[in-house]
Amino acid sequence: MPIVDLHVLEGYNPEEKQRLGEALTDAVRFVVPAALELVTVMIRDLPAENYYRGRSQRIPAPARPDPTQIVKDYLAAMEARELDKARAMLGDGFTMTFPGTAPMRTLEELIEWSKPRYKFVTKTYDGFDALHSAGDAAIVYCRGILQGEYHDNSPFEGIRFIDRFEIEDGKITRQDVWNDMAEVRTNA
Amino acid sequence: MPIVDLHVLEGYNPEEKQRLGEALTDAVRFVVPAALELVTVMIRDLPAENYYRGRSQRIPAPARPDPTQIVKDYLAAMEARELDKARAMLGDGFTMTFPGTAPMRTLEELIEWSKPRYKFVTKTYDGFDALHSAGDAAIVYCRGILQGEYHDNSPFEGIRFIDRFEIEDGKITRQDVWNDMAEVRTNA
Amino acid sequence: MPIVDLHVLEGYNPEEKQRLGEALTDAVRFVVPAALELVTVMIRDLPAENYYRGRSQRIPAPARPDPTQIVKDYLAAMEARELDKARAMLGDGFTMTFPGTAPMRTLEELIEWSKPRYKFVTKTYDGFDALHSAGDAAIVYCRGILQGEYHDNSPFEGIRFIDRFEIEDGKITRQDVWNDMAEVRTNA
Amino acid sequence: MPIVDLHVLEGYNPEEKQRLGEALTDAVRFVVPAALELVTVMIRDLPAENYYRGRSQRIPAPARPDPTQIVKDYLAAMEARELDKARAMLGDGFTMTFPGTAPMRTLEELIEWSKPRYKFVTKTYDGFDALHSAGDAAIVYCRGILQGEYHDNSPFEGIRFIDRFEIEDGKITRQDVWNDMAEVRTNA
Amino acid sequence: MPIVDLHVLEGYNPEEKQRLGEALTDAVRFVVPAALELVTVMIRDLPAENYYRGRSQRIPAPARPDPTQIVKDYLAAMEARELDKARAMLGDGFTMTFPGTAPMRTLEELIEWSKPRYKFVTKTYDGFDALHSAGDAAIVYCRGILQGEYHDNSPFEGIRFIDRFEIEDGKITRQDVWNDMAEVRTNA
Amino acid sequence: MPIVDLHVLEGYNPEEKQRLGEALTDAVRFVVPAALELVTVMIRDLPAENYYRGRSQRIPAPARPDPTQIVKDYLAAMEARELDKARAMLGDGFTMTFPGTAPMRTLEELIEWSKPRYKFVTKTYDGFDALHSAGDAAIVYCRGILQGEYHDNSPFEGIRFIDRFEIEDGKITRQDVWNDMAEVRTNA
Repeated sequence: MPIVDLHVLEGYNPEEKQRLGEALTDAVRFVVPAALELVTVMIRDLPAENYYRGRSQRIPAPARPDPTQIVKDYLAAMEARELDKARAMLGDGFTMTFPGTAPMRTLEELIEWSKPRYKFVTKTYDGFDALHSAGDAAIVYCRGILQGEYHDNSPFEGIRFIDRFEIEDGKITRQDVWNDMAEVRTNA
Repeated sequence: MPIVDLHVLEGYNPEEKQRLGEALTDAVRFVVPAALELVTVMIRDLPAENYYRGRSQRIPAPARPDPTQIVKDYLAAMEARELDKARAMLGDGFTMTFPGTAPMRTLEELIEWSKPRYKFVTKTYDGFDALHSAGDAAIVYCRGILQGEYHDNSPFEGIRFIDRFEIEDGKITRQDVWNDMAEVRTNA
Repeated sequence: MPIVDLHVLEGYNPEEKQRLGEALTDAVRFVVPAALELVTVMIRDLPAENYYRGRSQRIPAPARPDPTQIVKDYLAAMEARELDKARAMLGDGFTMTFPGTAPMRTLEELIEWSKPRYKFVTKTYDGFDALHSAGDAAIVYCRGILQGEYHDNSPFEGIRFIDRFEIEDGKITRQDVWNDMAEVRTNA
Repeated sequence: MPIVDLHVLEGYNPEEKQRLGEALTDAVRFVVPAALELVTVMIRDLPAENYYRGRSQRIPAPARPDPTQIVKDYLAAMEARELDKARAMLGDGFTMTFPGTAPMRTLEELIEWSKPRYKFVTKTYDGFDALHSAGDAAIVYCRGILQGEYHDNSPFEGIRFIDRFEIEDGKITRQDVWNDMAEVRTNA
Repeated sequence: MPIVDLHVLEGYNPEEKQRLGEALTDAVRFVVPAALELVTVMIRDLPAENYYRGRSQRIPAPARPDPTQIVKDYLAAMEARELDKARAMLGDGFTMTFPGTAPMRTLEELIEWSKPRYKFVTKTYDGFDALHSAGDAAIVYCRGILQGEYHDNSPFEGIRFIDRFEIEDGKITRQDVWNDMAEVRTNA
Repeated sequence: MPIVDLHVLEGYNPEEKQRLGEALTDAVRFVVPAALELVTVMIRDLPAENYYRGRSQRIPAPARPDPTQIVKDYLAAMEARELDKARAMLGDGFTMTFPGTAPMRTLEELIEWSKPRYKFVTKTYDGFDALHSAGDAAIVYCRGILQGEYHDNSPFEGIRFIDRFEIEDGKITRQDVWNDMAEVRTNA
């Protein structure tokens, strides 16, 4: 029955604490094979006046946003072709790599690339995995199934895809995409 | 600034504690944007005689093996065509899905499937990401570049791939593979 | 010198915390011969949003009522012949055993049994001892002195008694009674 | 769900820690209705060099002996008529009260008192309850069934008894006994 | 990265906690050569209902006043010749020793002693050091430079001084003064 | 009953822990007026493999030496005129200021300065006070009484002195001295 005590400055909200509770539980179980029901996480949040580092009070930093939600919002905006909204979610130095492309830097490049390929595409999601890297980026994976229409109006469906995102300071800085579109086209 | 106290039964070795230290640090930073250098993890390991749950002493469970290492060993065995070794690493209900395939259950199926496609393939790795799921499986992603030779002896290289693995009780239970091979062949 | 930290979900009231403080102090001193004044108990009550078990928040269970108070209320109701009130305090499977009786299941049996023995009886208490068993029952002992009147109007007094109660889920499930009534009558 | 951290000076042995683990678990469950399996006790024993009170190191006091074991040993010695052994277990100011007796101070008084009553008696135990009082005494209750032989060689059996002991500094300082012997004799 | 957890009864205000944070940080660094920025102090203040010593709740004692502030106020009052105010800050058994004096017990003695020496004197402070002794007194050192005027109207300045104060229960109980006045006069 | 938990990397010896226990106790009592006997300090020393900061193990820094002992050793060496030994205890940028002197940088300057003043001097100590500053220096005060002989062979005695030292990285970086020698000579 591993027990995790997390001591942080007061100020995180219940949703943020829930995310901490889940991430810490999973971190323990990454190594310790305890039954899920036997992992306890206790968050001790200290008011600023009760916490001193280097003799000084500190101000709690606002929580990082949920990177999975950022990815979901971005994918929804892209699917709805809300390019301004999607563009606002990209960070400095953003690159995206799709099957067969070099790293692209703008959404316009992507649209240009996709134009000859299909009329539209939508995504059905099988799952998301998210973690924080050893650096400052969160990593989000999402995978699922593509469906849509080619330019000859023929539909396609059931095409597996996976996306990998890096999120830093709440902005997407990298997107890598793999899918079976060419495989499927080849075999069609 | 955040401080994590992990209380576990004594018995984990330094390598396992290092993995706990890293996973817990990343879990905190998933939500709390503290500088890496300011996240402290302290492991308090209690001898069995100092820990009681339900009035009874408990025996510490052996640590879960590092799932990234399991994946690396499996991929190395596959590349070296050490099929017995690779097979021994697969768990009950193992399935693997490759571009264009239905879920396959045996390595033989995979070899059969790959035969017409290429003479051999090797992998260069760009990175691994590993996390524990909300359930009992660890998830490992690895991504990088494929190179090898087609049956006409023409080489290929620079083909992006990504693999997703699920590991349970130290065994691989699922492998999903995406890559740009069809895309590249199509464009070749 | 010994220090007890109790971590529980927020929601216990001061009277309940006082009982925890006392019970934990006595538990320590059951083994550690520290002076009473040197045993410290600190209760850390966590709001539900700060506590996760198995990745989930939990709802604190209402405290168990003080079993000594339950016994006192029951004994007072019995002495006042408030049978409905007393009956309402009994749990499923309740049994009571008095000197010379088989286990009885209803208050009516007890009254029937006592009828030929005395006109009335009252109790003076020397002390109560209460503890929680290794199972789900609390145990309460009370001991003291009986006085009353026989059917010939002759009084009796100074008769030692002891009762042992088991309380589960706030209900009395077992009462065992010993006293010197027969001894005293015999010697009278 | 409740978690108890006990901080004590190093030096208690596993059997003593087990007793602490049990007593603290029961103390918590006296108030908090947590399932037994969800109460955790962690003992943190500090070497003397890591503990300071009033700027000074302290020496851990040897644990109190298990009072239930003391009572069992005493009762066994009495049953075996090993009076010297039993006498050595009594503390200053020891008194014992049996049905119909004034407080007696010596085992000789008890033997004198019991002589006319029965030839011998043995005990079968139904259970022991032990706790530490708010003062310096541990309290032990034991209850069960008496059997033996009267002076006319007629046997008796199935007679309920209960004993209450107070133990201080490892010595029995008080014994109170109740049983149904007179009740049974009267009804015989 | 040493971490200090201080557990106290609730009731200290932010200024008092700041003083605790500083004093505890310095105490750690007295022995452990950690960088200032890496010493963390966390104050856990418990409501009275969550803290039991010897089975009883305790009332938090009001904080000791900042002894440095007491000394500053006293020195300011003396410099302003607010003798009543200064006198009210002295504790029972107060003594003060100045260069060449026996211990004096009243401010009047001091004024008498200083009269022939200078017309007036003011102080410029280079620094204060304060600590709590192993006993009940706080110790405050202040040092700096004296300036003023002799009775012949000639000024003096740049005369080093140091004062040592003992403060108990918020009152000054001892003052010891050293300075270079005689040295300077001698060499003048 | 304030309780201090200090968490440090394993490696400090009992004498160093004793100093931590004392300094932390005094730090608490600087603000909290608890009786000395009711302040508890517990040191939790973690093996390196149980402590991670920024995902990395850390090596404990050797303890700072006791600055009071350094001062005592230095004063003893000076009194014994073991100048090489004393000089080895001085840090970069060392200055010392005596009554009437500008800051001196070498022991030779001091000896030169003292030559015309007395033949020899010895010290009797009334007390030492030591603390760690908000910076990297420890501060040590020592005070007492000087005695010795002037150049005319006349003795002097009972002259009050106080020294203030700053110690950094185990070396004395500053000494400030005040005493009543001029006062006494003037009045002689």
